[in-house]
Amino acid sequence: MNRNFGVIDLGSNTARLVVYEQDSQGLVTEVDNIKRGLRLSNHVQDGHMDEEGITKTIDCMRQFKDLLEARNIKDIIAVATAAVRQSDNGSELIDRISKETGISVRVLGGEDEARYGYLAVVNSMSIDEGITIDIGGGSTEVTFFSNRELQASHSFPFGIVSLTRMFFHSEVPTAEELSSLEHFLSTAFSSCPWLLSRHCPVIAIGGTARNLAKIQQRAVQYSMDSFHHYPLDTEQVAGILEQLSLLSLEERRQVPGISKDRADVILAGITVFESLLRHAGSPELIVSNKGLRDGILSEVVWGTAAPTSIRVVHERSIDQFMNRYQVNKPHAIHVSKLSLSLFDQLQTFGHHTYGQGERDLLEAAALLHDVGRTINVHEASEHTFYLLSHVLLAGYTHRERLLIAMIASFKSNKLLQSQLAKHTDIVSKTDKSLVEKLGHLVLLARMLDRSMSQAIHTIRLTDDDGPLTLLCLGKRDGLLEYSLLDEPLAKLSKAWKLPLSFRPVVDDSPAKP
Amino acid sequence: MNRNFGVIDLGSNTARLVVYEQDSQGLVTEVDNIKRGLRLSNHVQDGHMDEEGITKTIDCMRQFKDLLEARNIKDIIAVATAAVRQSDNGSELIDRISKETGISVRVLGGEDEARYGYLAVVNSMSIDEGITIDIGGGSTEVTFFSNRELQASHSFPFGIVSLTRMFFHSEVPTAEELSSLEHFLSTAFSSCPWLLSRHCPVIAIGGTARNLAKIQQRAVQYSMDSFHHYPLDTEQVAGILEQLSLLSLEERRQVPGISKDRADVILAGITVFESLLRHAGSPELIVSNKGLRDGILSEVVWGTAAPTSIRVVHERSIDQFMNRYQVNKPHAIHVSKLSLSLFDQLQTFGHHTYGQGERDLLEAAALLHDVGRTINVHEASEHTFYLLSHVLLAGYTHRERLLIAMIASFKSNKLLQSQLAKHTDIVSKTDKSLVEKLGHLVLLARMLDRSMSQAIHTIRLTDDDGPLTLLCLGKRDGLLEYSLLDEPLAKLSKAWKLPLSFRPVVDDSPAKP
Repeated sequence: MNRNFGVIDLGSNTARLVVYEQDSQGLVTEVDNIKRGLRLSNHVQDGHMDEEGITKTIDCMRQFKDLLEARNIKDIIAVATAAVRQSDNGSELIDRISKETGISVRVLGGEDEARYGYLAVVNSMSIDEGITIDIGGGSTEVTFFSNRELQASHSFPFGIVSLTRMFFHSEVPTAEELSSLEHFLSTAFSSCPWLLSRHCPVIAIGGTARNLAKIQQRAVQYSMDSFHHYPLDTEQVAGILEQLSLLSLEERRQVPGISKDRADVILAGITVFESLLRHAGSPELIVSNKGLRDGILSEVVWGTAAPTSIRVVHERSIDQFMNRYQVNKPHAIHVSKLSLSLFDQLQTFGHHTYGQGERDLLEAAALLHDVGRTINVHEASEHTFYLLSHVLLAGYTHRERLLIAMIASFKSNKLLQSQLAKHTDIVSKTDKSLVEKLGHLVLLARMLDRSMSQAIHTIRLTDDDGPLTLLCLGKRDGLLEYSLLDEPLAKLSKAWKLPLSFRPVVDDSPAKP
Repeated sequence: MNRNFGVIDLGSNTARLVVYEQDSQGLVTEVDNIKRGLRLSNHVQDGHMDEEGITKTIDCMRQFKDLLEARNIKDIIAVATAAVRQSDNGSELIDRISKETGISVRVLGGEDEARYGYLAVVNSMSIDEGITIDIGGGSTEVTFFSNRELQASHSFPFGIVSLTRMFFHSEVPTAEELSSLEHFLSTAFSSCPWLLSRHCPVIAIGGTARNLAKIQQRAVQYSMDSFHHYPLDTEQVAGILEQLSLLSLEERRQVPGISKDRADVILAGITVFESLLRHAGSPELIVSNKGLRDGILSEVVWGTAAPTSIRVVHERSIDQFMNRYQVNKPHAIHVSKLSLSLFDQLQTFGHHTYGQGERDLLEAAALLHDVGRTINVHEASEHTFYLLSHVLLAGYTHRERLLIAMIASFKSNKLLQSQLAKHTDIVSKTDKSLVEKLGHLVLLARMLDRSMSQAIHTIRLTDDDGPLTLLCLGKRDGLLEYSLLDEPLAKLSKAWKLPLSFRPVVDDSPAKP
């Protein structure tokens, strides 16, 4: 039975309600997402929230409650961050929200907030060691993790709104203003000795980070619509900062990709990133589209422990994708098993030297080859490519996502070439051979289970009788699959430059593991 | 409760099994589709099917049965056409299929076959009067309908395989061979006086028609992936015929878009189309991707009567799309109601002169604006455009489908411009204003029901107090919607060049119709 629940994040800049649906296996899908820009930071003076801020917040919470009630959702997780935490009348606000709307808001401590950012990252990225930084309106959280385990964390009591107010007194900041902000940040970061010279990636969370990614993607006409796991090198971040710092507010608003209601505070935000990259000696900043509420969510679903390896993240992602798009799982798992069996046996026979990385891509692609059917059984391969290249498959880089999408949807060279041509900034012509070869393995494996009944339970390559032959151990004679194998086998033979025929073998023993 | 059933079409060229899923409302979705090229025509000599043809058929039926059993589907509708109908031992074959597989196959008479083609067309196209032609391997069915009612039908005992065998004796047909085929066809068509000089569109059903569309689309690099409702004018058909008739079989196989296993018989097929177009004095041939089995299916779902108007077809299509992609129906219907109310009131106030056609597009777009959410709540507009431009919405032309897709997914001019730029062969720059204006109506209507609770039940335009104001009659004060209306209203005002503000009115009376 599916259950819905809401997560409310009462931030210093924005209040956001996200509605999730959790299926019977516990996997969660976002089904609605609404935000209101309250800019509470502006209503906190000298550690006190003014009455207007309080009224705005209560009104907003009441509206969120209405929306949840309209959907009959009673299960609500609500948290508040810096603006409330830093207000001496924060608990009064929480009491009033509770009385007037029935929503019980938990005020997060800075360390909690930092930990949720870290959790969001290790649950959705293929990075074992890194520094996370989440800049909000009124606070900034940093953590350091290695082996996916949290090593240290800290919350600074400044954010983009407060830094802008403290340091920038005109639209175009002067060199002095910029350098005094940088000096301030350097001192702040020094209070966390574990940040210094880590030389690991910095993972940036939050609206400023997303906006930075958008600006860079627009500038280079990036071919994928995805911010999560998007890398910028240190020079790119410095370049954007320099470019923006010379513009007036109105000019900044016209920069392609910039979020208009963030143009006034983005400079402070990017300065924080740039300073941290230098301080930590990091080669790159990687944007995370997952943050606080995803960390909270992962705690609800997976508990407080981080996944022990990227493999766990991949398995969960793939599983969620399969559930979400109603894949026939016994079929998908069987196709994956057959594809990997072919891959391994071809290796044994010396026909390739691919490694674990390619094997993992093949496994993911085989498990997900049918997702496009949820859109339509016609042109399902095109739909599979669309879904896998447009919907986040957490835990993979953009390049890996595209390779999986191309292998999973592989049908012909013509289609593959048009896919490659669209993404020359992410994949290269040299990937063509890999995709083609693995794609043919999936195509053959799909045909080996065309009836989706796992009637052919095992395949074995043999050269006992001379030429390489694929023995198909099936439950009985005359299977539909055998009538359909000639074409995919001929195509695979051509792509792999490997003459291969098949022979049915009746074998009614249970499937081999 | 959903139920699955299979439809088997044992044709003269191809045997095909399609698996459908019918939802609790009776709407049907194709979930699997498998074909085997049996070319039974080649096994019928002098009205008798040889033993190899019989064995192949029974094997194929057994495999189809296996596939259905693997999915636990007991409900099977199976029909056979010309090859079996024209064989004196057809009933023996049917008996053996029944005994050996349990599948009971109905042999369709030519008139039945023709009627199913007609039913498929009137259930999926916006054409009130036309001639249908369905060319199979061993027979050709024609009908004439007007006011969507069947007026006449006929089945000719020749198809692409038999015509090729009868008239073409070398790879490149001679001028004499072509002209004697044309003479033969002209005589045949004359036996149906109701075909002569109808001047209505010819709707072409079947593999040859789809292949013709594909060749033309590849030649002009058509921007949509859709054969259904694709028009070719008489000169284009004649041009392709002339081009192909000069090529050897091997050269024909290389023509972009041609189906390799049809290259040997396609010339006869296109000659039939071209002759019929001339005979009927028709301006164009419109390809139908719906045929025999869709006709059978529509009879199962909607009964033997044809829909009385295109409006009925549209309603069913939209309803099916909404069900298929799990749209929140009360919300979609409310957004549609509010959009149309705005449209009508703006007309009353003299702000546009659009007609019923544009109103219908707006209604469809408003009902379908949320389909993309089934893919993902993020970038849902892009997904809505993808679905509506890639998945068949039956009963609409390609142009109408694109306009609906653009209105439904409208978010910004930037997105719209990129959509228009991709489809300049189907929509034009002059459509931009229409899409933008109607798009803003849908955007505002969506925000008016952002909580999806229909809290704002009625809207009224008034200029009683001077400037035009939108009165929003809502269940109570302080609705979430009111906090969110400023932006869409400002954008609408700009696009319509019409300063418009809103005023909440508490009105707890039931929604007005």
